[in-house]
Formats: sequence, C-alpha cells, structure tokens
Amino acid sequence: MDVRRPTIADVAKRAGVSKGLVSFVFNDKPGVAAPTRERILAAAAELGWQPDQLARSLSTQQAASLGLVVRRDPTVLAADPFFPAFMAGVETALTERGWVLVLSLVPDADAEAATYRSLAAHRRVDGVLLTDLRRDDERLPLLAGLGLPAVCVGRPDAPAGFPVVNLDDAAGLRAVVEHLVGLGHRRIGYVGGDVGMLHGLRRRATFRAALAGHGLEPVGLVDTDFSAAAGAAATTALLDAPERPTALVYASDPMAVAGLAVLQRRGLRVPQDCSVTGFDGMELGAHLHPALTTVGADPLAWGRAAAGVLLRLLDDGRAEDLELPAAALLVRSSTGPPPDPPA
Amino acid sequence: MDVRRPTIADVAKRAGVSKGLVSFVFNDKPGVAAPTRERILAAAAELGWQPDQLARSLSTQQAASLGLVVRRDPTVLAADPFFPAFMAGVETALTERGWVLVLSLVPDADAEAATYRSLAAHRRVDGVLLTDLRRDDERLPLLAGLGLPAVCVGRPDAPAGFPVVNLDDAAGLRAVVEHLVGLGHRRIGYVGGDVGMLHGLRRRATFRAALAGHGLEPVGLVDTDFSAAAGAAATTALLDAPERPTALVYASDPMAVAGLAVLQRRGLRVPQDCSVTGFDGMELGAHLHPALTTVGADPLAWGRAAAGVLLRLLDDGRAEDLELPAAALLVRSSTGPPPDPPA
Repeated sequence: MDVRRPTIADVAKRAGVSKGLVSFVFNDKPGVAAPTRERILAAAAELGWQPDQLARSLSTQQAASLGLVVRRDPTVLAADPFFPAFMAGVETALTERGWVLVLSLVPDADAEAATYRSLAAHRRVDGVLLTDLRRDDERLPLLAGLGLPAVCVGRPDAPAGFPVVNLDDAAGLRAVVEHLVGLGHRRIGYVGGDVGMLHGLRRRATFRAALAGHGLEPVGLVDTDFSAAAGAAATTALLDAPERPTALVYASDPMAVAGLAVLQRRGLRVPQDCSVTGFDGMELGAHLHPALTTVGADPLAWGRAAAGVLLRLLDDGRAEDLELPAAALLVRSSTGPPPDPPA
Repeated sequence: MDVRRPTIADVAKRAGVSKGLVSFVFNDKPGVAAPTRERILAAAAELGWQPDQLARSLSTQQAASLGLVVRRDPTVLAADPFFPAFMAGVETALTERGWVLVLSLVPDADAEAATYRSLAAHRRVDGVLLTDLRRDDERLPLLAGLGLPAVCVGRPDAPAGFPVVNLDDAAGLRAVVEHLVGLGHRRIGYVGGDVGMLHGLRRRATFRAALAGHGLEPVGLVDTDFSAAAGAAATTALLDAPERPTALVYASDPMAVAGLAVLQRRGLRVPQDCSVTGFDGMELGAHLHPALTTVGADPLAWGRAAAGVLLRLLDDGRAEDLELPAAALLVRSSTGPPPDPPA
C-alpha cells in the first residue's frame, strides 16, 4: 500500500485525466463534462485527496492569472529565444491550476507604468513577474505602491520588497573564462548585451573580473542589444581590431550563432582559428556545426520556478527567495585550444 | 495645413507620448498622471481628433484582451521561433489600445476545451486567435457554441463561421521546388512537420504535387514534430537511404538548421554536395553560414494582421477574411546546383 500523501497527479492518473482538469473541477470552473467531473471527484474521494491552496483560492476573488509586462522592441522579442522558453515554463506552472498568463508588450516607460496601473486597478492579474531588471528599477516602488504582488526574475540592485528568483549568471560566465584560459587563450574578446539591463551589465562586469583574475584584459569589448544582427556587427569590429582575439565570448546564443557565421565566412575555422561561446543554452545551439559551447541557463525551468514562487506568495501571503542551480557551462565543439603560433 | 483626418498617432506626437497612452486616456483607464492626461486631451482637442472604436468600447463591458490557447508540448513551444514572433505581432496590434494577450498552454484536448469554456464563462477575453488548425477542428463548433468570437490563423478545412486570416504557405513551397528543379535537382527529399496540423499536412501535399508537376517523386519523405532534434534524425535517415538526395526541403527553419549541421558533420558541403531549404524565415537563418534559403512567412506580420481582424470583428460585429501576401522564397546561400556527376 502506498503511504505517501496523495497528490493531484495521483488523482489525475486514477481518473485518467490531466492535472489541469482536476484543478478545474476543484476550482469549480465550468467546462468539464459531468461524467468526467464525477470520475474526478470519485478518484479524489477514493484516494482521500484534499485540495489545499485550490480550495482556499475559491474563497477569495482571484483573477487566476499572472502578468508579464515586457518592455522590448517587438522584433527583438520575436527573435530572442529566452522569452518563449521562459513563458513556456511559466505556463507549465499555471496549467496545473487552470491559471493563465496575461502578456503585454510595451514600447516605453510611460506605457509600462500605465499598464501596471491598469492591471492593478482592474484586478486583471493577481501578481506579476518582473523580468529584464534595470538599474534603480522604477517598477519596484510603483508595484509596492499599487499593492500588486510581484516576483523579481533575477536579483535587483537594491532590496526589492518582493521575493527574488535568481539564477546565477556569473558562475556560468566565470566557467567560460576558466575554460578558455585553461585551453590556453590569452586574447579574448567580449560581445555583450544591453547594459541598460542588469543582467547585461553584470555579465560584462563578471567577464572583466574573471579575466583580471588571470592578469588579463579583454582585447575588445562591445555592447549591443542582444540581437543576432548586432552580434554579427560586433564580431566584424572585433576581428578588424589591431589585436585579433583567439576566442570570442558572447552574452547571448543568437549573437554567438551570428558571430560563428561571420568567422566562417572569413574562412576562419571554429574552433581551430577562433573559439566561440554563447549564453542561454537555446536548443538550436546543440544542432549547429560546430555545436555551440554555451552557458545553459534553462529559461524554461526559471519560468516555472518564478511562477511557482509567485503562486506561493499569493497562496500564503509570503514566499522565500529562491536561488536556482547556477547556470552550467555546456562544453561542445565551438571551443578548443588557440592556434599555435597565435594567428 | 494638413488636411488629412487626424489619427491617434498625430495626437500622440503632439502630446509627446506614445499612442498607448492616448488610448489609455480615452479608455478612461487609470495610471496616467494628471498633467500628461491634460496634455493628451488638449492635443486631441486642438487636432479635432475623436476616438472611434475606443469611445464605443467604453460603453460596453469588455475584457480588453484577446486569448491564445496553444496545445503544444512546452519544450516544443519554447524552441519554435514562430510563436514568439506571432505573439510579438499580436502585441503590436494590442499595445495601441492598451489591450493585453491572455496566453494559455494546454497539454491535451480536454484541457483545451475546458480552458476555452472557462475563458468564455468568466468573460476573461473578448475573442480568441486559433492557431495550429487541425483536421475537423473541434474548436470551431465549440467556440461557436460558446458564442466566443474568433479568428482562424490559417484556413480551416471546412467553413469556419469565423473570419480567416490566411498566409498562403503553398506558394512559397512551390517556389522552393521550382527553384531547386530550376537549379537541376532531380533527387529531392522532404522533412515535413506535424501532419496532425493542417499546415503540416498541406506543406507535404504541396511539395508532392509540385514535384509531380515535373514528373518527379520525392526520394524520401519523413514526418516529424517540427523540432530541431527530429529534423536532425530525419536528415540522417534520408542520407542513409539507398537513393541519396541532392537537395533537402524542410518544413521549418529549426529543422533545416539542424539538418545543415548533420550534412556538415558528415563532411558534405552545403550547397555544393547538397542544397537545403527551410520554412518560416526566422531571423537567425540569415545569420548562418551558409545563410539559409527559406520561405519568409513573416509570423510577426501575421500576428498583427490576425489581431487586427479580431479587433475589427469585436468593434463592428463583422470582419472580412484577409489573405496576406503569399510567403516569398528568400534565396540565400544554402542552395545551388546539384553535384556533377551526381554524388
């Protein structure tokens, strides 16, 4: 006999339905056919399963949705593999309860603030996920003032008053530098991201500090908007500089992919003539030739975890910060020893 | 003097704010600071601008949101460049009005139907966008029964009762075949997508028909789930078949990228030994070496157009079908003449 406490998954399995449907029934939502509903209730009764938070949320007026307001250019959002993976992770956490994600894309700070105010005033979301944290982020005091619960996706530069779900970028970037220096590289260039965002800023600072730990300076350092086109342009600039790098570190995978093509088009072999590393671990990186050495940040897991903490905050009125396992270096085929003698 | 009828953009420009903010003010939404609000109202008065649909929507009880329910595996969604681009396009259309997108990811047909029922019962969305249309799609009668307005993104296989916003895949795929046959290819293989979805099915049928028009049969034809991993596996299978293709046509860009790497890892040159074509026109395809010849379906424009038609349906009670410009072939560097003598 199974002595574990039964879970919603056990009920779903016994009733032959998805966990989402069990949640629908116990949230008293319409849309579940009567026989299915009865089968689910019977399975729960047989297993002695009691909904916890679900029952509680019934007693309150909830929107049953989380909000994500993204202030980015639509074309940049469209091409960035972080967001779809992050949102898929958020959805994974929401689907089990039958909750939804309210997504809004805004062009500027005014529209951003107005959107948060509207979401709060109309109670269209129960809480929001804050991504792309910025220096002195004006969203933190705004949301505190609105009384809108939030979770910070990444660590802000000041105490937030909201739970933080962090994934340590720095460890992964330090591992990149150790890997390249260990292979013998001394002339390393850096193609960074948007330094208006804290993660762009931190990745650059971490890169510099890790190099300095080996008594090295970057041979070149370019800030971009994280896009593939900007990555390609930055690569060209670094290759045309007087001191040519033997390795290029990129702050995002799409930029690294574009950089790789720039190198190959110049007849440079990767990694024999120049090594390349990416950041984020997008699926396609494993399916390139050479396969991309990158930092696997797992945005899907991050999204699931961030939504989980926000749901806990809404259920219990409080939630602890969560530090995710640090992003790990995925060594593939785009890195190797520098050319000898140096090219 | 400018005799054009003033637009919301003119008001925004004159007031020095975004169009979203103008819309917020005229939708009587909270969150706009009083001086800004007054500046916007003054600019509108000076220009003689009157909100049309905006004023009308004030008088009705609207959720001010569109719904998108996606029934796909989260990891497949995370890696597919179509959805982020499509959603970015939808958001572009919504931002101007201060509307939001309600996104739900569901694992199966039961959860899908329950989600639509819940969205309708709680009036959480004013209408929904239907993507990934399937054969005898059960969502069409469901939504009609619920009275939930919808727009079909792609043409269903039976009259829908909803406006259709279509982008003709077939023209692009026919152009791919003409391009390859024109280059001299006779042994062409096909790596298709999910044939449970109408667009997967149609792309395959179009490919076969276009080849047959030249008296040719595909040398191989594999159905997949549209993912890069499946694209790689299908490529290996096609290359190991007795009659080796000189060109491979893929039903998605991520599969084509993965296939390109499989070819390169085998020491085959693209396009000298084998040509490769993709589908969808994801941004990264232009930043590969060789750059990917593909069909540029522009999902961002599609998302914007589909949301626009749905908004029109909600505003006016009716909207016409919309046929977007057919997806065009983008000839880049991954296609060329077949090897001579054939490899």
